[in-house]
Amino acid sequence: MGNDLHGPEGMPEGKGLLIVYTGPGKGKTTCALGTAFRAVGQGLRVLMVQFIKGSWHYGELDAAKMLGDDKFEIRPMGRGFVKVGGAEADPEDVRLCEQAWEFGREKIYGEEYDLVVLDEINYVISYKMLDAGRVVSALRARPERIHVICTGRSAHPSLIEAADLVTEMKEIKHPYTKGILAQRGIDY
Amino acid sequence: MGNDLHGPEGMPEGKGLLIVYTGPGKGKTTCALGTAFRAVGQGLRVLMVQFIKGSWHYGELDAAKMLGDDKFEIRPMGRGFVKVGGAEADPEDVRLCEQAWEFGREKIYGEEYDLVVLDEINYVISYKMLDAGRVVSALRARPERIHVICTGRSAHPSLIEAADLVTEMKEIKHPYTKGILAQRGIDY
Repeated sequence: MGNDLHGPEGMPEGKGLLIVYTGPGKGKTTCALGTAFRAVGQGLRVLMVQFIKGSWHYGELDAAKMLGDDKFEIRPMGRGFVKVGGAEADPEDVRLCEQAWEFGREKIYGEEYDLVVLDEINYVISYKMLDAGRVVSALRARPERIHVICTGRSAHPSLIEAADLVTEMKEIKHPYTKGILAQRGIDY
Repeated sequence: MGNDLHGPEGMPEGKGLLIVYTGPGKGKTTCALGTAFRAVGQGLRVLMVQFIKGSWHYGELDAAKMLGDDKFEIRPMGRGFVKVGGAEADPEDVRLCEQAWEFGREKIYGEEYDLVVLDEINYVISYKMLDAGRVVSALRARPERIHVICTGRSAHPSLIEAADLVTEMKEIKHPYTKGILAQRGIDY
Protein backbone atom coordinates (compact mmCIF):
# COMPACT_ATOMS: atom_id res chain seq x y z
CA MET A 1 0.00 0.00 0.00
CA GLY A 2 1.28 3.42 0.83
CA ASN A 3 2.30 4.49 -2.62
CA ASP A 4 -1.17 4.29 -4.04
CA LEU A 5 -2.58 6.21 -1.14
CA HIS A 6 -0.70 9.44 -0.93
CA GLY A 7 -3.07 12.27 -0.37
CA PRO A 8 -3.30 15.28 -2.65
CA GLU A 9 -2.37 17.77 0.03
CA GLY A 10 -0.03 20.46 -1.11
CA MET A 11 0.18 19.04 -4.59
CA PRO A 12 1.60 21.35 -7.21
CA GLU A 13 -1.10 21.52 -9.87
CA GLY A 14 -0.01 21.86 -13.43
CA LYS A 15 3.10 19.68 -13.41
CA GLY A 16 2.75 16.80 -15.85
CA LEU A 17 4.46 13.51 -15.05
CA LEU A 18 6.46 11.25 -17.34
CA ILE A 19 5.60 7.69 -16.33
CA VAL A 20 7.15 4.44 -17.57
CA TYR A 21 5.63 0.97 -17.12
CA THR A 22 8.16 -1.63 -18.15
CA GLY A 23 9.50 -5.10 -17.34
CA PRO A 24 8.68 -8.60 -18.55
CA GLY A 25 5.58 -9.14 -16.39
CA LYS A 26 1.98 -8.71 -17.39
CA GLY A 27 0.24 -5.45 -16.58
CA LYS A 28 2.04 -2.65 -18.42
CA THR A 29 -0.69 -1.70 -20.87
CA THR A 30 -3.27 -2.67 -18.28
CA CYS A 31 -1.74 -0.27 -15.78
CA ALA A 32 -1.80 2.52 -18.36
CA LEU A 33 -5.48 1.75 -18.99
CA GLY A 34 -6.13 1.98 -15.26
CA THR A 35 -4.34 5.31 -15.03
CA ALA A 36 -6.31 6.55 -18.04
CA PHE A 37 -9.55 5.41 -16.43
CA ARG A 38 -8.76 7.22 -13.20
CA ALA A 39 -7.73 10.34 -15.14
CA VAL A 40 -11.00 10.39 -17.06
CA GLY A 41 -12.83 10.30 -13.74
CA GLN A 42 -10.96 13.44 -12.72
CA GLY A 43 -11.97 15.19 -15.91
CA LEU A 44 -8.70 14.76 -17.81
CA ARG A 45 -8.81 14.10 -21.55
CA VAL A 46 -6.85 11.01 -22.51
CA LEU A 47 -5.35 9.64 -25.72
CA MET A 48 -3.73 6.23 -26.08
CA VAL A 49 -1.63 5.65 -29.20
CA GLN A 50 -1.07 1.92 -29.68
CA PHE A 51 2.20 1.25 -31.49
CA ILE A 52 1.44 -2.45 -31.72
CA LYS A 53 -2.02 -3.61 -32.45
CA GLY A 54 -3.40 -7.07 -31.85
CA SER A 55 -5.36 -8.82 -34.53
CA TRP A 56 -8.14 -9.75 -32.15
CA HIS A 57 -10.82 -7.77 -30.41
CA TYR A 58 -9.69 -5.55 -27.55
CA GLY A 59 -11.99 -4.91 -24.59
CA GLU A 60 -10.46 -1.50 -24.00
CA LEU A 61 -11.64 -0.17 -27.36
CA ASP A 62 -15.28 -0.76 -26.47
CA ALA A 63 -14.89 0.41 -22.88
CA ALA A 64 -13.27 3.64 -24.08
CA LYS A 65 -16.21 4.17 -26.44
CA MET A 66 -18.55 3.78 -23.47
CA LEU A 67 -16.77 6.66 -21.76
CA GLY A 68 -16.86 8.72 -24.94
CA ASP A 69 -14.22 9.59 -27.54
CA ASP A 70 -13.97 13.12 -26.19
CA LYS A 71 -12.85 11.62 -22.85
CA PHE A 72 -10.70 8.64 -23.79
CA GLU A 73 -9.60 7.98 -27.32
CA ILE A 74 -7.62 4.89 -28.30
CA ARG A 75 -5.83 4.88 -31.65
CA PRO A 76 -4.40 1.54 -32.76
CA MET A 77 -1.74 2.61 -35.27
CA GLY A 78 0.94 -0.04 -35.64
CA ARG A 79 0.64 -3.46 -37.20
CA GLY A 80 -0.22 -6.70 -35.47
CA PHE A 81 2.34 -8.83 -33.73
CA VAL A 82 5.82 -7.55 -34.58
CA LYS A 83 8.66 -9.92 -33.84
CA VAL A 84 12.00 -8.97 -35.21
CA GLY A 85 14.42 -11.37 -33.59
CA GLY A 86 17.92 -10.79 -34.91
CA ALA A 87 16.84 -9.41 -38.28
CA GLU A 88 16.46 -5.81 -39.42
CA ALA A 89 13.11 -4.18 -38.74
CA ASP A 90 10.61 -4.39 -41.59
CA PRO A 91 10.52 -0.97 -43.37
CA GLU A 92 6.73 -1.02 -43.27
CA ASP A 93 6.80 -1.39 -39.47
CA VAL A 94 9.31 1.45 -39.21
CA ARG A 95 7.05 3.63 -41.33
CA LEU A 96 3.99 2.87 -39.20
CA CYS A 97 5.93 3.51 -36.00
CA GLU A 98 7.12 6.88 -37.33
CA GLN A 99 3.56 7.74 -38.23
CA ALA A 100 2.31 6.76 -34.77
CA TRP A 101 5.10 8.72 -33.08
CA GLU A 102 4.44 11.83 -35.19
CA PHE A 103 0.78 11.62 -34.29
CA GLY A 104 1.49 11.15 -30.58
CA ARG A 105 4.12 13.90 -30.51
CA GLU A 106 1.75 16.34 -32.14
CA LYS A 107 -0.93 15.59 -29.53
CA ILE A 108 1.60 15.89 -26.67
CA TYR A 109 2.48 19.36 -27.94
CA GLY A 110 -1.15 20.27 -28.64
CA GLU A 111 -3.98 21.41 -26.40
CA GLU A 112 -6.41 18.58 -26.99
CA TYR A 113 -5.33 16.13 -24.27
CA ASP A 114 -4.06 16.11 -20.68
CA LEU A 115 -2.60 12.61 -20.73
CA VAL A 116 -1.09 10.81 -23.71
CA VAL A 117 -0.24 7.10 -23.46
CA LEU A 118 2.38 5.79 -25.90
CA ASP A 119 1.53 2.12 -25.68
CA GLU A 120 4.36 -0.34 -26.49
CA ILE A 121 6.71 2.49 -27.50
CA ASN A 122 9.45 0.97 -25.33
CA TYR A 123 9.17 -2.22 -27.30
CA VAL A 124 9.41 -0.56 -30.71
CA ILE A 125 12.38 1.55 -29.54
CA SER A 126 14.14 -1.57 -28.26
CA TYR A 127 13.75 -3.10 -31.72
CA LYS A 128 15.16 0.05 -33.39
CA MET A 129 11.91 0.86 -35.12
CA LEU A 130 12.08 4.29 -33.50
CA ASP A 131 15.05 6.34 -32.27
CA ALA A 132 15.31 6.64 -28.48
CA GLY A 133 17.21 9.94 -28.53
CA ARG A 134 14.64 11.71 -30.62
CA VAL A 135 11.72 10.44 -28.54
CA VAL A 136 13.34 11.27 -25.19
CA SER A 137 14.32 14.79 -26.31
CA ALA A 138 10.78 15.52 -27.42
CA LEU A 139 9.35 14.15 -24.17
CA ARG A 140 11.78 16.19 -22.04
CA ALA A 141 10.89 19.38 -23.90
CA ARG A 142 7.11 18.81 -23.82
CA PRO A 143 4.68 21.39 -22.42
CA GLU A 144 4.87 21.28 -18.64
CA ARG A 145 1.21 20.50 -18.02
CA ILE A 146 0.99 17.27 -20.02
CA HIS A 147 1.24 13.75 -18.54
CA VAL A 148 2.83 11.05 -20.69
CA ILE A 149 2.94 7.31 -20.09
CA CYS A 150 5.30 5.02 -22.04
CA THR A 151 4.67 1.28 -21.85
CA GLY A 152 6.46 -1.82 -23.09
CA ARG A 153 9.26 -4.06 -21.93
CA SER A 154 12.93 -3.08 -22.12
CA ALA A 155 12.48 0.67 -21.61
CA HIS A 156 15.53 2.57 -22.88
CA PRO A 157 17.90 3.78 -20.10
CA SER A 158 17.63 7.38 -21.34
CA LEU A 159 13.84 7.22 -20.99
CA ILE A 160 14.13 5.83 -17.46
CA GLU A 161 16.56 8.65 -16.69
CA ALA A 162 14.07 11.24 -17.95
CA ALA A 163 11.02 9.73 -16.21
CA ASP A 164 9.42 10.82 -12.94
CA LEU A 165 7.94 7.42 -12.18
CA VAL A 166 9.12 4.02 -13.35
CA THR A 167 7.44 0.78 -12.33
CA GLU A 168 8.81 -2.55 -13.47
CA MET A 169 6.34 -5.41 -13.80
CA LYS A 170 7.97 -8.64 -12.73
CA GLU A 171 6.39 -11.92 -13.64
CA ILE A 172 6.11 -14.17 -10.61
CA LYS A 173 3.62 -16.61 -12.06
CA HIS A 174 1.91 -16.71 -15.40
CA PRO A 175 -1.24 -18.62 -16.35
CA TYR A 176 0.22 -19.73 -19.68
CA THR A 177 2.84 -21.69 -17.79
CA LYS A 178 -0.06 -23.51 -16.15
CA GLY A 179 -1.57 -24.31 -19.55
CA ILE A 180 -4.33 -21.73 -19.31
CA LEU A 181 -4.69 -19.60 -22.41
CA ALA A 182 -5.64 -15.93 -22.67
CA GLN A 183 -9.06 -15.11 -21.28
CA ARG A 184 -11.52 -12.80 -22.95
CA GLY A 185 -12.16 -9.72 -20.85
CA ILE A 186 -9.05 -10.25 -18.76
CA ASP A 187 -6.17 -10.48 -21.17
CA TYR A 188 -7.56 -8.55 -24.11
CA MET B 1 5.75 -7.27 -24.94
CA GLY B 2 4.50 -10.72 -25.74
CA ASN B 3 2.53 -11.39 -22.60
CA ASP B 4 0.02 -8.66 -23.25
CA LEU B 5 -0.47 -9.78 -26.78
CA HIS B 6 -1.38 -13.42 -26.62
CA GLY B 7 -4.23 -14.13 -28.94
CA PRO B 8 -7.47 -15.74 -27.87
CA GLU B 9 -7.13 -18.77 -30.11
CA GLY B 10 -8.21 -21.99 -28.53
CA MET B 11 -9.01 -20.34 -25.27
CA PRO B 12 -11.04 -22.41 -22.86
CA GLU B 13 -14.06 -20.26 -22.10
CA GLY B 14 -15.53 -20.44 -18.66
CA LYS B 15 -12.39 -20.84 -16.55
CA GLY B 16 -12.02 -17.94 -14.13
CA LEU B 17 -8.54 -16.76 -13.20
CA LEU B 18 -7.18 -15.87 -9.78
CA ILE B 19 -4.86 -12.90 -10.30
CA VAL B 20 -2.56 -11.23 -7.76
CA TYR B 21 -0.96 -7.79 -8.19
CA THR B 22 1.57 -7.25 -5.45
CA GLY B 23 4.96 -5.72 -4.65
CA PRO B 24 6.09 -2.35 -3.33
CA GLY B 25 5.84 -0.42 -6.62
CA LYS B 26 2.99 1.76 -7.79
CA GLY B 27 0.39 0.28 -10.08
CA LYS B 28 -1.35 -2.54 -8.24
CA THR B 29 -4.78 -0.96 -7.85
CA THR B 30 -4.24 0.84 -11.14
CA CYS B 31 -3.60 -2.45 -12.91
CA ALA B 32 -6.77 -3.92 -11.41
CA LEU B 33 -8.67 -0.86 -12.66
CA GLY B 34 -7.22 -1.42 -16.14
CA THR B 35 -8.23 -5.08 -16.09
CA ALA B 36 -11.70 -4.08 -14.92
CA PHE B 37 -11.95 -1.52 -17.70
CA ARG B 38 -10.96 -4.07 -20.33
CA ALA B 39 -13.39 -6.61 -18.86
CA VAL B 40 -16.28 -4.13 -19.01
CA GLY B 41 -15.49 -3.61 -22.69
CA GLN B 42 -15.92 -7.35 -23.22
CA GLY B 43 -19.28 -7.32 -21.51
CA LEU B 44 -18.17 -8.68 -18.13
CA ARG B 45 -19.78 -7.31 -14.98
CA VAL B 46 -17.21 -6.10 -12.48
CA LEU B 47 -17.19 -5.35 -8.76
CA MET B 48 -14.29 -3.78 -6.87
CA VAL B 49 -14.37 -4.02 -3.08
CA GLN B 50 -11.95 -1.51 -1.59
CA PHE B 51 -10.63 -2.73 1.77
CA ILE B 52 -8.83 0.56 2.36
CA LYS B 53 -10.44 3.79 1.41
CA GLY B 54 -8.70 7.10 0.94
CA SER B 55 -10.06 10.24 2.50
CA TRP B 56 -9.77 12.20 -0.72
CA HIS B 57 -11.61 12.05 -3.99
CA TYR B 58 -10.90 9.09 -6.25
CA GLY B 59 -11.04 9.45 -10.03
CA GLU B 60 -12.03 5.82 -10.46
CA LEU B 61 -15.32 6.29 -8.61
CA ASP B 62 -16.51 8.86 -11.12
CA ALA B 63 -15.15 6.98 -14.11
CA ALA B 64 -16.94 3.81 -12.97
CA LYS B 65 -20.17 5.80 -12.69
CA MET B 66 -19.67 6.96 -16.28
CA LEU B 67 -19.61 3.32 -17.37
CA GLY B 68 -22.65 2.53 -15.23
CA ASP B 69 -23.09 0.77 -11.90
CA ASP B 70 -24.51 -2.29 -13.63
CA LYS B 71 -21.16 -2.62 -15.48
CA PHE B 72 -18.53 -1.60 -12.94
CA GLU B 73 -19.36 -1.06 -9.31
CA ILE B 74 -16.78 0.17 -6.81
CA ARG B 75 -17.55 -0.26 -3.11
CA PRO B 76 -15.19 1.56 -0.72
CA MET B 77 -15.70 -0.39 2.52
CA GLY B 78 -12.72 -0.04 4.85
CA ARG B 79 -11.54 3.01 6.69
CA GLY B 80 -9.06 5.56 5.50
CA PHE B 81 -5.33 5.14 5.86
CA VAL B 82 -4.64 2.16 8.09
CA LYS B 83 -1.16 1.94 9.50
CA VAL B 84 -0.62 -0.61 12.19
CA GLY B 85 3.14 -0.70 12.70
CA GLY B 86 4.05 -3.15 15.44
CA ALA B 87 0.82 -2.77 17.39
CA GLU B 88 -2.30 -4.92 17.34
CA ALA B 89 -4.87 -4.09 14.67
CA ASP B 90 -7.63 -1.74 15.74
CA PRO B 91 -10.79 -3.83 16.41
CA GLU B 92 -12.83 -1.39 14.34
CA ASP B 93 -10.56 -1.98 11.33
CA VAL B 94 -10.82 -5.73 11.84
CA ARG B 95 -14.61 -5.46 11.92
CA LEU B 96 -14.72 -3.39 8.72
CA CYS B 97 -12.35 -5.80 6.97
CA GLU B 98 -14.53 -8.75 7.97
CA GLN B 99 -17.54 -6.92 6.63
CA ALA B 100 -15.80 -6.14 3.35
CA TRP B 101 -14.61 -9.74 3.01
CA GLU B 102 -18.07 -11.17 3.72
CA PHE B 103 -19.53 -8.85 1.11
CA GLY B 104 -16.87 -9.77 -1.46
CA ARG B 105 -17.09 -13.51 -0.72
CA GLU B 106 -20.86 -13.42 -1.16
CA LYS B 107 -20.50 -11.74 -4.55
CA ILE B 108 -17.79 -14.18 -5.64
CA TYR B 109 -20.17 -17.04 -4.87
CA GLY B 110 -23.16 -15.24 -6.39
CA GLU B 111 -24.31 -14.76 -9.98
CA GLU B 112 -24.16 -10.97 -10.18
CA TYR B 113 -20.56 -10.45 -11.32
CA ASP B 114 -17.97 -12.04 -13.62
CA LEU B 115 -14.92 -10.37 -12.05
CA VAL B 116 -14.48 -9.36 -8.42
CA VAL B 117 -11.50 -7.22 -7.38
CA LEU B 118 -10.49 -7.39 -3.71
CA ASP B 119 -8.51 -4.18 -3.57
CA GLU B 120 -5.77 -4.01 -0.87
CA ILE B 121 -6.79 -7.37 0.57
CA ASN B 122 -3.13 -8.48 0.57
CA TYR B 123 -2.29 -5.52 2.75
CA VAL B 124 -5.02 -6.16 5.32
CA ILE B 125 -4.08 -9.86 5.44
CA SER B 126 -0.43 -8.96 6.00
CA TYR B 127 -1.51 -6.83 8.98
CA LYS B 128 -3.60 -9.70 10.41
CA MET B 129 -6.84 -7.83 9.94
CA LEU B 130 -8.08 -10.84 7.97
CA ASP B 131 -7.09 -14.51 8.09
CA ALA B 132 -5.14 -15.71 5.04
CA GLY B 133 -6.19 -19.34 5.39
CA ARG B 134 -9.87 -18.55 5.38
CA VAL B 135 -9.60 -16.21 2.38
CA VAL B 136 -7.47 -18.58 0.30
CA SER B 137 -9.74 -21.57 1.01
CA ALA B 138 -12.78 -19.59 -0.10
CA LEU B 139 -11.01 -18.39 -3.25
CA ARG B 140 -9.83 -21.90 -4.14
CA ALA B 141 -13.35 -23.29 -3.76
CA ARG B 142 -15.05 -20.49 -5.69
CA PRO B 143 -17.34 -21.12 -8.69
CA GLU B 144 -15.17 -22.00 -11.68
CA ARG B 145 -16.40 -19.22 -13.95
CA ILE B 146 -15.51 -16.26 -11.74
CA HIS B 147 -12.36 -14.13 -12.07
CA VAL B 148 -10.86 -12.69 -8.89
CA ILE B 149 -8.08 -10.12 -8.52
CA CYS B 150 -6.33 -9.51 -5.19
CA THR B 151 -4.18 -6.39 -4.88
CA GLY B 152 -1.85 -4.98 -2.25
CA ARG B 153 1.75 -5.36 -1.24
CA SER B 154 3.08 -8.37 0.64
CA ALA B 155 0.71 -10.96 -0.83
CA HIS B 156 0.54 -14.04 1.41
CA PRO B 157 2.55 -17.05 0.13
CA SER B 158 -0.55 -19.26 0.24
CA LEU B 159 -2.39 -16.81 -2.01
CA ILE B 160 0.52 -16.74 -4.47
CA GLU B 161 0.49 -20.53 -4.42
CA ALA B 162 -3.23 -20.58 -5.25
CA ALA B 163 -3.06 -17.90 -7.97
CA ASP B 164 -2.93 -18.40 -11.74
CA LEU B 165 -1.18 -15.10 -12.42
CA VAL B 166 1.03 -13.08 -10.10
CA THR B 167 2.70 -9.84 -11.12
CA GLU B 168 4.98 -7.99 -8.76
CA MET B 169 5.27 -4.23 -9.18
CA LYS B 170 8.79 -3.13 -8.49
CA GLU B 171 9.53 0.52 -7.86
CA ILE B 172 12.40 1.70 -10.00
CA LYS B 173 11.78 5.40 -9.60
CA HIS B 174 9.12 7.28 -7.72
CA PRO B 175 8.05 10.91 -8.19
CA TYR B 176 7.84 11.51 -4.43
CA THR B 177 11.55 10.89 -4.19
CA LYS B 178 11.94 13.74 -6.67
CA GLY B 179 9.84 16.03 -4.50
CA ILE B 180 6.77 15.84 -6.70
CA LEU B 181 3.57 15.15 -4.80
CA ALA B 182 0.55 13.12 -5.87
CA GLN B 183 -1.14 14.40 -9.01
CA ARG B 184 -4.89 14.64 -9.45
CA GLY B 185 -6.10 12.31 -12.17
CA ILE B 186 -2.94 10.27 -12.13
CA ASP B 187 -2.44 9.14 -8.56
CA TYR B 188 -6.00 9.25 -7.26
